[in-house]
Amino acid sequence: MFESAELGHKLTKKVYKKELPALREALLDAQLDLLQSKKFPVIILLAGVDCAGKGETMNLLHEWMDPRHIESHALRELTDEERDRPPMWRYWRDLPPTGKIGIFIGSWYSAPLVDNVHGRTKNAELDQQLDRIIRFETMLCNEGALILKFWLHLSEKQQKKQLKKLESDPKTRWRINESDWKNFKMYDRFRTVSERMLRNTSSPQAPWTIVEGADAQYRSLTIGKAILESLRHRLDAPEAPKVEEPLPPMLTSIDGLQILQTLDLTQKISKNDYKKELETLQGRLNRLSRHKNFDKISVVAVFEGNDAAGKGGSIRRITQALDARSYRIIPVAAPTEEERAQPYMWRFWRHLPRRSRVAIFDRSWYGRVLVERVEGFCSHADWMRAYGEINDFEEQLVRNRTVMLKFWLSISKEEQLKRFKEREKIGFKRFKITEEDWRNREKWEQYEQAVCDMIDRTSTEIAPWTLVEANDKGHARIKVLKTACDRIEQALNKQ
Amino acid sequence: MFESAELGHKLTKKVYKKELPALREALLDAQLDLLQSKKFPVIILLAGVDCAGKGETMNLLHEWMDPRHIESHALRELTDEERDRPPMWRYWRDLPPTGKIGIFIGSWYSAPLVDNVHGRTKNAELDQQLDRIIRFETMLCNEGALILKFWLHLSEKQQKKQLKKLESDPKTRWRINESDWKNFKMYDRFRTVSERMLRNTSSPQAPWTIVEGADAQYRSLTIGKAILESLRHRLDAPEAPKVEEPLPPMLTSIDGLQILQTLDLTQKISKNDYKKELETLQGRLNRLSRHKNFDKISVVAVFEGNDAAGKGGSIRRITQALDARSYRIIPVAAPTEEERAQPYMWRFWRHLPRRSRVAIFDRSWYGRVLVERVEGFCSHADWMRAYGEINDFEEQLVRNRTVMLKFWLSISKEEQLKRFKEREKIGFKRFKITEEDWRNREKWEQYEQAVCDMIDRTSTEIAPWTLVEANDKGHARIKVLKTACDRIEQALNKQ
Repeated sequence: MFESAELGHKLTKKVYKKELPALREALLDAQLDLLQSKKFPVIILLAGVDCAGKGETMNLLHEWMDPRHIESHALRELTDEERDRPPMWRYWRDLPPTGKIGIFIGSWYSAPLVDNVHGRTKNAELDQQLDRIIRFETMLCNEGALILKFWLHLSEKQQKKQLKKLESDPKTRWRINESDWKNFKMYDRFRTVSERMLRNTSSPQAPWTIVEGADAQYRSLTIGKAILESLRHRLDAPEAPKVEEPLPPMLTSIDGLQILQTLDLTQKISKNDYKKELETLQGRLNRLSRHKNFDKISVVAVFEGNDAAGKGGSIRRITQALDARSYRIIPVAAPTEEERAQPYMWRFWRHLPRRSRVAIFDRSWYGRVLVERVEGFCSHADWMRAYGEINDFEEQLVRNRTVMLKFWLSISKEEQLKRFKEREKIGFKRFKITEEDWRNREKWEQYEQAVCDMIDRTSTEIAPWTLVEANDKGHARIKVLKTACDRIEQALNKQ
Repeated sequence: MFESAELGHKLTKKVYKKELPALREALLDAQLDLLQSKKFPVIILLAGVDCAGKGETMNLLHEWMDPRHIESHALRELTDEERDRPPMWRYWRDLPPTGKIGIFIGSWYSAPLVDNVHGRTKNAELDQQLDRIIRFETMLCNEGALILKFWLHLSEKQQKKQLKKLESDPKTRWRINESDWKNFKMYDRFRTVSERMLRNTSSPQAPWTIVEGADAQYRSLTIGKAILESLRHRLDAPEAPKVEEPLPPMLTSIDGLQILQTLDLTQKISKNDYKKELETLQGRLNRLSRHKNFDKISVVAVFEGNDAAGKGGSIRRITQALDARSYRIIPVAAPTEEERAQPYMWRFWRHLPRRSRVAIFDRSWYGRVLVERVEGFCSHADWMRAYGEINDFEEQLVRNRTVMLKFWLSISKEEQLKRFKEREKIGFKRFKITEEDWRNREKWEQYEQAVCDMIDRTSTEIAPWTLVEANDKGHARIKVLKTACDRIEQALNKQ
């Protein structure tokens, strides 16, 4: 894999100097086109062997292009705000918006590589991590990002030479320390693991480009040209009318039996029992939120349901039991301008809670496979891939010791009609029924199908859906509270 | 000051229960009006004596209103991302956007109060801190915020009773610890300092409301009603046509002599000297950026200047000397939707660098007193108050060990014409001269006046303007670099 990058590629100063001006001009032009068209974001990864020129390349790119529209990120110590969230949170924070270029040294590849080289992970674990990376990058590409991944390579001999050269020059001596030499002694191990990593994560959409790093002129011009070519290719591509790929249809059960139909919506609780249970459960939830292990976990609760199913009321029964300082409710509305310039999931990542905090999403990322699917706001392929992306997202949360609660509040079509009419009678504007509510109702069956598919595809062992029979508000609230208590208690006991 | 809050105010449960439903209804209504009109943000501060009911009140407000549109913040340990910035950064992060309500327990008042009570600050220092708070709140009010400040008071006897009551109940015992009793022993001291603080920070726009905290019913209903009244008052105020207050005119020097005229724009440097000096200074800047004390400071550089004065070129000569990982250039463009929902300075606060980082603003907060003033994008009062707000902002940066560099790049009207024409000749779109550039040029004298006023009012000892004669690009770049080196070196030596 690295053979071609050990051939001793070189470029004379003369050739370099001759070719550079045109390249810079063209890069600057491409960058401006990108900025003005805001067609997509560009993510450039610079990885590779120590001393192969990652930092120099980053600096050069800043010099060649307009540095005002490049955002650079280097590996550094995690801040405590980052340590509280899933490992990928820091990268989500740093994603460039459409029209901009983000350059990463020390990206999501660093930890998996180093951990395996030093024996902290087995190969199976590494492969698992790499698999997650592929899924992450595939998502970015599907969202429109252009990902360019460069691996700067040096042969063992070349690396030794570079280390010595940097060490002997007083201007660069500060860059070399003992750990560099220690790493150098593990050259073979690094090489083996790197190769495995590159092989497994070179996808058609985001392939690795291996560049020999020894000769600065060759290296710089190679990378510059590769970036230019990729940029131009995407910028100049004609805006083809988006053709929906013919995806296989989702199968519906041939006997018409669906999960939602199995719910017994007649379940009820008496007013008295409701009062008693409510008090007990709210007391229990409050005590749990003050448990000594509560600062080791975080809680993310998602509320979805039919219109008028009582999401707000259920949420309030939870928050009443919590200290207002510990929770935040995120009502999911139309995305802001800054959110629209990012991948779909970005608007949810930014609201992830710190440890010991509770985030309650009133509607959520499931909008993609519910309203956006039914109303045709996104393409078939977009909502089909959302199932997998959502599962990946929730898996990361759970691995980070987040209790993931997902409630679907279900009412019958008749009950909804009754509630709509009641709301119309009450003059209060906050209960105003909009035309949209009535329109959605006409698509009841389509929504029902979408809900069933959602449950089938995203109710996982680590992040199960709780289906809540909500024709009786009391019953629904008690079930929500009890589920929350049980799941949180379970998590606290595991810490 | 606290006399009226020690009278033993009480409300029977009966009265409370009778009045509550209407209050809640009305509060919810007002909140919805606020949300829909997006007229202004609401900032509620809950401060006061321990155990006087701050947390309970916060929880109640969440219960009474729609908690999805309330953001609550409580005093907690600073995160390391916050510790790197000026103390007020954390509060700027947490400001609610227009249409939303932000509730703070433990606000910008906490540290000044506690530090003085425990003798860590003298009274003069406290007064200075309070003065800064007043300026901050005045700015918020001028930007449209509604600030409601509640001080929950308990007499010494009442506090003792509350502490004992909480301690004896197993449900609340966890809330009381030794430090509460320690604080209680300093009751008189707390009372004295609190009084001084309240007196000094009760402004007509944001007065304190002192509420006796002993009786929960009285306390809750009082605060609820006060919030409702203030909300309704602002919401229902007729949209009066904004009348410009007659402000005194800015005086111009009667002999016509202005600071910009004193610049010798003929200053030049030969190509050879430029090359030599550039290399020396970039080397020096690079070494400074690797100085052992560099992680104790941060650098904020502002570039302003006539159109075509060469800001971009000067910025690049700085960044060429720095590692791309250590700086960020912030091109100031039209504010985003999220930025427009916040005070003017918010968009700059969000980009403040961490320690050991450099932030370069290509145009800046000075837009308010330059383009916005000349073009009439904001009112006379708005740009007049901006001078003070900017000085406050920069003072906070400098106090936080930020090296504040401000460059005005000045060219003559003739030189600008020459450059405009040159740019028109070069076909490159990135140098395209817009109609706007020509229009701005017609207002040359007005801009010149605005620049002179800006320098007179914001060139301070701690954050001086560097006026750069920029008819000769080489001279300008060298002056910028040299100033940056000198100022950074000075700061490093002081650490």
